[in-house]
Amino acid sequence: MAAPPFLLDCDTGIDDSLALLYLLASPVANLVGITTVSGNVSAAQAAQNCLDLLEISGFEGIPVAVGAHDPLVGDFEGGVPHIHGANGVGNIELPTASASVVAESGAELIVKLADEYAGELRLVAIGPLTNLALALKLDPSLPTKISHLTIMGGAALAPGNITPVAEANIGLDPEAAAAVFAAPWPMTMVGLDVTMQQRMEEPARQRLLSSGKPVAIAIGAMLELYFEFYVNVYGHPSSALHDPLAAAIATGEVVPSLAPIVPVEIDATLGIGRGQTIADLRGQFRGYPLIEGAHCAVVLRVDEDFSPMLVDRILSL
Amino acid sequence: MAAPPFLLDCDTGIDDSLALLYLLASPVANLVGITTVSGNVSAAQAAQNCLDLLEISGFEGIPVAVGAHDPLVGDFEGGVPHIHGANGVGNIELPTASASVVAESGAELIVKLADEYAGELRLVAIGPLTNLALALKLDPSLPTKISHLTIMGGAALAPGNITPVAEANIGLDPEAAAAVFAAPWPMTMVGLDVTMQQRMEEPARQRLLSSGKPVAIAIGAMLELYFEFYVNVYGHPSSALHDPLAAAIATGEVVPSLAPIVPVEIDATLGIGRGQTIADLRGQFRGYPLIEGAHCAVVLRVDEDFSPMLVDRILSL
Repeated sequence: MAAPPFLLDCDTGIDDSLALLYLLASPVANLVGITTVSGNVSAAQAAQNCLDLLEISGFEGIPVAVGAHDPLVGDFEGGVPHIHGANGVGNIELPTASASVVAESGAELIVKLADEYAGELRLVAIGPLTNLALALKLDPSLPTKISHLTIMGGAALAPGNITPVAEANIGLDPEAAAAVFAAPWPMTMVGLDVTMQQRMEEPARQRLLSSGKPVAIAIGAMLELYFEFYVNVYGHPSSALHDPLAAAIATGEVVPSLAPIVPVEIDATLGIGRGQTIADLRGQFRGYPLIEGAHCAVVLRVDEDFSPMLVDRILSL
Repeated sequence: MAAPPFLLDCDTGIDDSLALLYLLASPVANLVGITTVSGNVSAAQAAQNCLDLLEISGFEGIPVAVGAHDPLVGDFEGGVPHIHGANGVGNIELPTASASVVAESGAELIVKLADEYAGELRLVAIGPLTNLALALKLDPSLPTKISHLTIMGGAALAPGNITPVAEANIGLDPEAAAAVFAAPWPMTMVGLDVTMQQRMEEPARQRLLSSGKPVAIAIGAMLELYFEFYVNVYGHPSSALHDPLAAAIATGEVVPSLAPIVPVEIDATLGIGRGQTIADLRGQFRGYPLIEGAHCAVVLRVDEDFSPMLVDRILSL
């Protein structure tokens, strides 16, 4: 059986790079398209990073579309150069790809591939959800055409990262997130509840750097800046594995040990709760009995140690 | 050394009854006043319940003041008769006390006792925070006169109970809670993070019922309704020990194993996050380094099993 088709929506980004390479190397994913959105960097820069990563990994022919530069409301505020570098890949220089982006917008490519692979396409969204919200406007029937949507974003019980309750991907475009979580597709939310628990440490990074493989060396090098940022979070250089964990859960290669399907709403007010993913977890003591209309699995626990698996995957490229 | 003076602000209520009796029986608390507020029942009914409980427990001379009937914004909506009974004490009939309430309002009694016991008075607030907010308006210097404020309320990481994120005491008067959490007193928040983990089970209730002691029998009887309500929460008859746990933490007889002092703000918007206690727990991986201005210890873990201790205490009356 052929591996199912995947579309990656990303704001590449160091951990987005890990997710992209993870999907490229996965035997159970066929990456058929990439769309970018502003988040860690601008959508245009993110697209260039994807093209460059595809080329040094030896992949060609996967369409990359530049998606939304601005969130639905307001303007893109310039990204987080102190975390991902000014260029999104930790300020290292990747060889510039010969390939170019396609003519379609991100939302257009999502709709096009959803039609081409109707019923089969799996979306993995690891940036702000602007492109998905725009795609829903272009084609309100989109949820019926998608096999599954997995997002990296939100925080159900764990603290947020850009505010006490908001995670960055949701907080950068709460209005888009509200539309995406309200759409009736089967979806999985991989949030800070689990991504903050999955880390790559320095010995793993050294494995990448000493591998002699250009892609792995590039990843190891760009992770240096990301590791530095996390000193303020974990107390030592390290890296949360946000986006690649979402990719691995999307392919089914990492199976959460707890992921109840519950109602999730987005706080899109202008108050202090703005950007929060409000998951109704009040069924916690009764095995989360099904609530009508709920369609989002909220990942609350992953028992595997994902870092070694991720490093092996990157080294396989 | 004499036991320090305590004032209990409550909406009695079955678990409020437990908290009241716990404080009455505590060798390290001198209960010098009680103020009531609408919540589980009306403030007036709550006051009558307190008077009745004091009398069957053999205590006299502790002033009981009727506090706010309505929250700062809007109207009292009638309480939760399915949880606490129409009369707040599980629809059992307590002998009507001969004593009456004092002339002061709840807020006035708080201010009066704070002056009388300046620097020493400990407040334990286990209902909506309306009276405390009104007391702060009467005397903005109140926080400097209070030794410590302990509240039962909120949910930092745990789900809420009246909404996915709001706990009842905060959610019934978010504007009051916002004022109370913003005031610069040293305070401790005992929320659903720990109170949902501390339960009384049926054998403990039977111990109360078979004790031959009028107070304990009354408590055991009123707990029947409360136990029934929790079937929908825990899957079997049981009782969360919200209010008495806060009382025991206030007296120092239960010592939390994790209670970082962090900024806490109240969501007082009209959005879906209304009534949430937003605690900034982003320092979780670094031992919660002190953040300037933080003055609220948020109890996140209690390792003791509180129920046996509580039952023993009630049986000692």
